[in-house]
Amino acid sequence: MPRVSQDHLDARRQQILSGARVCFARYGYEGATVRRLEEATGLSRGAIFHHFRDKESLFLALAEDDAHRMADVVAREGLVQVMRDLLATKDGADWLGSRLELSRRLRTDPEFRARWAERSERLTEATRQRLLRQREAGNLRDDIDVGVLTSYLELVLEGLVSHLAMGLPADDLEPVLDLVESSVRRATATA
Amino acid sequence: MPRVSQDHLDARRQQILSGARVCFARYGYEGATVRRLEEATGLSRGAIFHHFRDKESLFLALAEDDAHRMADVVAREGLVQVMRDLLATKDGADWLGSRLELSRRLRTDPEFRARWAERSERLTEATRQRLLRQREAGNLRDDIDVGVLTSYLELVLEGLVSHLAMGLPADDLEPVLDLVESSVRRATATA
Repeated sequence: MPRVSQDHLDARRQQILSGARVCFARYGYEGATVRRLEEATGLSRGAIFHHFRDKESLFLALAEDDAHRMADVVAREGLVQVMRDLLATKDGADWLGSRLELSRRLRTDPEFRARWAERSERLTEATRQRLLRQREAGNLRDDIDVGVLTSYLELVLEGLVSHLAMGLPADDLEPVLDLVESSVRRATATA
Repeated sequence: MPRVSQDHLDARRQQILSGARVCFARYGYEGATVRRLEEATGLSRGAIFHHFRDKESLFLALAEDDAHRMADVVAREGLVQVMRDLLATKDGADWLGSRLELSRRLRTDPEFRARWAERSERLTEATRQRLLRQREAGNLRDDIDVGVLTSYLELVLEGLVSHLAMGLPADDLEPVLDLVESSVRRATATA
């Protein structure tokens, strides 16, 4: 396959992903019909489903993109920074909301849950690695297992996603994230 | 109105609420059609909407019941205990999931958000009062504002609700809740 063709395919894929993200954010997962996905991407259903097996695969590809981007931030600055970024932009609330709407599906469809878990595993692993490095550097509290600290930070992230997706007031959450951050650090480092 | 009649009305109201809770949990908010609400409660739509203005009011009455019950636990044992109870029973996940599905509605419908907020305000206030008493008793850390600690605990609760509603593994969350509890306590109390 000539090179230009591969570039073209990649660009097309990106075009589909960004259109679909806007579409899911606006209409929710169920509301994002094939027709609306065509409108949002400017492409035919044939073109869209040439790149993605089905709507579910398209949605999961977006979730995977998120996990990639968040994992990059985690590696450099930690999971609390991911939360601070979410709090600062807020404009992701519509998209985050469409993820929440899938909670029933996640709970009741084991295959979908497995595909989703595969993607979120990347973020868990990045968080774990970051915490291990922080412990090595003496910045982390050492009385609690890194696995527990990882689950703790992820639980707070889930709370923040839910909070923002519900459009609840978020102006007072900055000091809450400070508390979360300090509760995984060495006591001496925060004193 | 004779006394027996009022008792009858109260019992009827309870019958509707418990049937509706099962129905919302099974089918989600949108999926809980009037027909299914009739089946689940064993009552006609006429009887149901004699007691509740509409489906939304019925749903909010259930959310209010939850807030009442949680506020009672909070007053006696604190919000972390509410989370431990959720973790121990888990069978509330289906119902909790139906709440998550309303996130888009909460975000985009200010009137609905206001009605919802009125109900959840009770839980916030109970948490705040409990924390103030704990601070008075010297059990609470005193370097962080009670408002921030309240928001922190509520954010973790939101994360837990989301986590359980998505059916994610929760076996490892007990030590996470221990960490949450210790992070609002006086350092000396946990040492």
